[in-house]
Amino acid sequence: MSKILGYLGPRGTFTEEVSIKYAKDKDLLLKPFPALDKVFNAVARKEIEYGIVPVENSLEGSVNFTHDLLSNSDVKIQGELLLRVRQLLLARPGQKPSQIKEIYSHPQALAQCRLFLDKNYPGRPRINIASTAEAAALVAQNYGKAAIASIRAAELYGLEILQDSIQNEPSNITRFLLIGLDDVPPTGNDKTSLLVGLHDKPGTLYSILGVFARYSLNLTKIESRPIRGELGKYIFFLDFEGHREEKIVAQAMQEAEKQVLFLKVLGSYPRAESDL
Amino acid sequence: MSKILGYLGPRGTFTEEVSIKYAKDKDLLLKPFPALDKVFNAVARKEIEYGIVPVENSLEGSVNFTHDLLSNSDVKIQGELLLRVRQLLLARPGQKPSQIKEIYSHPQALAQCRLFLDKNYPGRPRINIASTAEAAALVAQNYGKAAIASIRAAELYGLEILQDSIQNEPSNITRFLLIGLDDVPPTGNDKTSLLVGLHDKPGTLYSILGVFARYSLNLTKIESRPIRGELGKYIFFLDFEGHREEKIVAQAMQEAEKQVLFLKVLGSYPRAESDL
Repeated sequence: MSKILGYLGPRGTFTEEVSIKYAKDKDLLLKPFPALDKVFNAVARKEIEYGIVPVENSLEGSVNFTHDLLSNSDVKIQGELLLRVRQLLLARPGQKPSQIKEIYSHPQALAQCRLFLDKNYPGRPRINIASTAEAAALVAQNYGKAAIASIRAAELYGLEILQDSIQNEPSNITRFLLIGLDDVPPTGNDKTSLLVGLHDKPGTLYSILGVFARYSLNLTKIESRPIRGELGKYIFFLDFEGHREEKIVAQAMQEAEKQVLFLKVLGSYPRAESDL
Repeated sequence: MSKILGYLGPRGTFTEEVSIKYAKDKDLLLKPFPALDKVFNAVARKEIEYGIVPVENSLEGSVNFTHDLLSNSDVKIQGELLLRVRQLLLARPGQKPSQIKEIYSHPQALAQCRLFLDKNYPGRPRINIASTAEAAALVAQNYGKAAIASIRAAELYGLEILQDSIQNEPSNITRFLLIGLDDVPPTGNDKTSLLVGLHDKPGTLYSILGVFARYSLNLTKIESRPIRGELGKYIFFLDFEGHREEKIVAQAMQEAEKQVLFLKVLGSYPRAESDL
């Protein structure tokens, strides 16, 4: 039986686009979920084998929320996926730009395409919708409206591309995580993600980073998050190059563990290729 | 003439709620803006004097997007504001819980209230809307629907409170920034926010944090962000206690500046009181 890969839906989002890419040539069934926590819960309860969720630079779901879910569940990070986000202006087939009276999309997608809209659709109202995919679905039912959404949404809703790549910045890369219940073995080019709780005194973060610096483990991400309801107390998300089963990584973590309140390995997983 | 305080709207959001609190007893006119970048641009062009934008743990606008706007503009952080977010279940007056067939809200608000909904409204469809305020506006026009939104949305749209404080976690604090064009003077209890670009080699972050540790400047936030389109290159947002005009802070920054690609002071501003 095919394994199931759940993703943050609805269909037609960038998360679906990257999930389709990932599932290509693999025996996986794709299943959309309406919320981030539902993807995590389905994996945790073994209703599905894998999940794909946005984690950085995303329009879909909040980075903070993904971090909260990672810290509160036993789900492991099994991989990372990168997608170069391309925003398209879409409408029902046969419509001319002059017929477009309103533009629908996620608020951040509208902002990311502001320069294009100001120049080509000045004065046309921009309507906020919860996701780019829902904007595309809405536009598919109405004349005189355009949506900013993904190429996948265009296919799904039979929309015509009025203009491709309309975002202000030509390259906008979004990072996604592949989650599951098992640890993945080392490949020789891996990353490890940690959640660390520190004692509340100046210099403790510095001291922990010192451990990683001494072992020459290259940090690729660091993020502090206030502990919910406890102002002034923080946890940290750290990513660095290496796999937890490598000797040097295991030693560094053992040393770091002595200086922290807690240390949770969120996963060791293959690095994404950087040539998109 | 009154000065204008712009905020990320629409009316009825948590950002409006904190803006009303801030403007109380001050001679300020409040003005909602439809997108984060529009608040920043209005301040930068001196169309308005101040802006309030969400920056951490927020449902409204992305943390990442606020960071991007801070890094790309000359707008200064002039203050921070904290709000304990309380989610309410709202409907048109006179309706009983049994009459509610659908629940409308921002996807993350629906997730934050999942336990309450699962228990009290099992099987009732949950509909994603771009903001809690827009969900409240929609529900105000329809029977048989409830919205999850702020107390401010209830007032604004004449909705009845079916249940107060329905979020899974009792305390959910959101942080907002007050932005403007001027530097604010020291109060003796301040914070400074920096944007730092580092040379791309292991240990540089550690070395910079060492400067702050030597001067006993307590870090309250650290966040790395990939440089757009340049995978593997990072900038850092750092917050620490102290004001840029304090001697010790000025010395630490001078020392740090020698080791970095660039260092931009986003603002020195009074710390928010932590007893909400």
